[in-house]
Amino acid sequence: MASTGSTMMLGREANCLGTLRMKSKAFSPPSRGFLLLQANLRATSMKVSQTTLNVAGEKQLKLLDRREKEHDMVADAFVLGKVEKDGRIFSQNYTIRSYDMGPNHKATIQTLMNLLQETALNHFKSMGLLKDGLGSTPEMSARNLIWILSKIHVVVDRYPTWNDDIRVETWFIPCGRNFMAIEWIICDSKNGEILTRASSKFMMMNKETRKLSEWPVEVRREIEPQYIDRLPLLDKDSSRLPKLNHSEMEYLRTDLIPRRNDLDINQHVNNVKYVAMMLESVPISFLESHEVYDVTVEYRRECGMNDVLRSLTSFCHETNIDQCFHLLHSECGAVVARGRTKWMPKHAKN
Amino acid sequence: MASTGSTMMLGREANCLGTLRMKSKAFSPPSRGFLLLQANLRATSMKVSQTTLNVAGEKQLKLLDRREKEHDMVADAFVLGKVEKDGRIFSQNYTIRSYDMGPNHKATIQTLMNLLQETALNHFKSMGLLKDGLGSTPEMSARNLIWILSKIHVVVDRYPTWNDDIRVETWFIPCGRNFMAIEWIICDSKNGEILTRASSKFMMMNKETRKLSEWPVEVRREIEPQYIDRLPLLDKDSSRLPKLNHSEMEYLRTDLIPRRNDLDINQHVNNVKYVAMMLESVPISFLESHEVYDVTVEYRRECGMNDVLRSLTSFCHETNIDQCFHLLHSECGAVVARGRTKWMPKHAKN
Repeated sequence: MASTGSTMMLGREANCLGTLRMKSKAFSPPSRGFLLLQANLRATSMKVSQTTLNVAGEKQLKLLDRREKEHDMVADAFVLGKVEKDGRIFSQNYTIRSYDMGPNHKATIQTLMNLLQETALNHFKSMGLLKDGLGSTPEMSARNLIWILSKIHVVVDRYPTWNDDIRVETWFIPCGRNFMAIEWIICDSKNGEILTRASSKFMMMNKETRKLSEWPVEVRREIEPQYIDRLPLLDKDSSRLPKLNHSEMEYLRTDLIPRRNDLDINQHVNNVKYVAMMLESVPISFLESHEVYDVTVEYRRECGMNDVLRSLTSFCHETNIDQCFHLLHSECGAVVARGRTKWMPKHAKN
Repeated sequence: MASTGSTMMLGREANCLGTLRMKSKAFSPPSRGFLLLQANLRATSMKVSQTTLNVAGEKQLKLLDRREKEHDMVADAFVLGKVEKDGRIFSQNYTIRSYDMGPNHKATIQTLMNLLQETALNHFKSMGLLKDGLGSTPEMSARNLIWILSKIHVVVDRYPTWNDDIRVETWFIPCGRNFMAIEWIICDSKNGEILTRASSKFMMMNKETRKLSEWPVEVRREIEPQYIDRLPLLDKDSSRLPKLNHSEMEYLRTDLIPRRNDLDINQHVNNVKYVAMMLESVPISFLESHEVYDVTVEYRRECGMNDVLRSLTSFCHETNIDQCFHLLHSECGAVVARGRTKWMPKHAKN
């Protein structure tokens, strides 16, 4: 039977942080324990009688262990090439809550992006690299440095709905000298189906001067050993944005005033809220008949409670797919964010 | 050993719905399985060696069962008198996520209210009383009836923070002929400390005519057997609101336009968002130095994407505590919601 030493070592954090793939062969049972076991076994078509849950713990752990190996093979076959076993891929399970859903009864794109952020933070925490604030490592914190999200690209293959169990996996890949790329996949916990792929690019900023910073060597030493040598999950070209001129945009929504609960603990509008504000200028009739499946956002400026924003949208008429470009700018004209979204008619198969 | 038959019966729902206290003595293990067991055991000061997690399943279930009984005694001592064992109290565990927090590093009042709603819906679902929409029973659904939240009162003793494990318990109590009261407590999962108490009052409305409805006898037959004979958790008088005249209010925030992601699956602004909008007219300097610990909202009108709202706030100068009254009304003057909030200086002990 696999040792559960790693689970014990992590103590309370393991409880919060979901499953961390450890260096050893040690097996961490999924955070939902017995009941997840039940769903897992159904998903892998193993016939289990009601008495299964009454058998000794050792037998149950063996079943979980077998299931874990099967899951890895399934996940391998889907996207990951080979699931790393050395602690540099972190995964966490979630259940979609009623308030995670939008008017179309599915999780919103904002919900998925919130869960990506949550999983990445817990990944940092699991490595002992979360000193304070949102994601700063000990060496960053000592130098007043914080992470700044520069770009994110999210591709949704299928949206989960209320009470669906999903698993988010995340890892870091290198991305030039002064950037870090965080990547994610979201899977259906039951059958490993990939629901979403996402990639992001982070920079460092000095918290006091608000200026971008090069990476100090001490920070580099903290982060670089965590990189995984893997090709990017999403094609770089597919997230490249054209130059957008606000005078050529078709739809405008003015007077977008951040609300107090748009702010995160850094007192700035949270990056996920930018997406909601970008979509505010998409015509309602289009929103009601279409579903977004691809979102790219380039973040240009922080914004706070006193910024009044304008959201602009334009449809791209040069391709066969429904594609929009977006600009979010302050009333004085400074660009706060640029973006692209791709859409499909509702009820169409992905 | 306790039979796990009830768990099997619930199947996948049990996985989603957290712990349901069943009529029989059957015991459903908490949804976080082994790892929660670990935290629970610590909380009850039972000394457990690392090898505990390796023992046979039967022994583990016995430990969980003992822990369950101990928890009941703790909870009893706090508020509940006696925890019912007949399936009419439903509880669910949650972990606070990073995006559940506000700028003060604590879960927001909106997060807590979202978790109340989620738990109540899962309670309906666990009883087989969730037909469609948000909470409609089969007999309601057959008559086009939906629930309308009339009033909610939430008292926060302590806000949880990121990665805190909490448990929400909920039940129904009678509340006059055409209302139903749903009550909740939120506890710290580890030690049973009560963090929040809440009470609400629901009415029925016809989905087509948007008119309030009396309760059909068939619906009464579905709901009434679920009532618990218990005194209300919160004093009724403490949630009574005075008449509020908008011309006497001190602070005004205009042009509050609902965003698309404020809507729930009924295409109306979700009741939790009303609270965020009410607080928009509280002066920032006060918000930054104070923390809300008591919220009452009376809902008067639905509102949708096309409503432009005004938020008005006034301080009550007649008491020694920091207390605000709130009005939310449409631009044409119709009252959408009324409310009261109570506040304490930040960093003060509750």
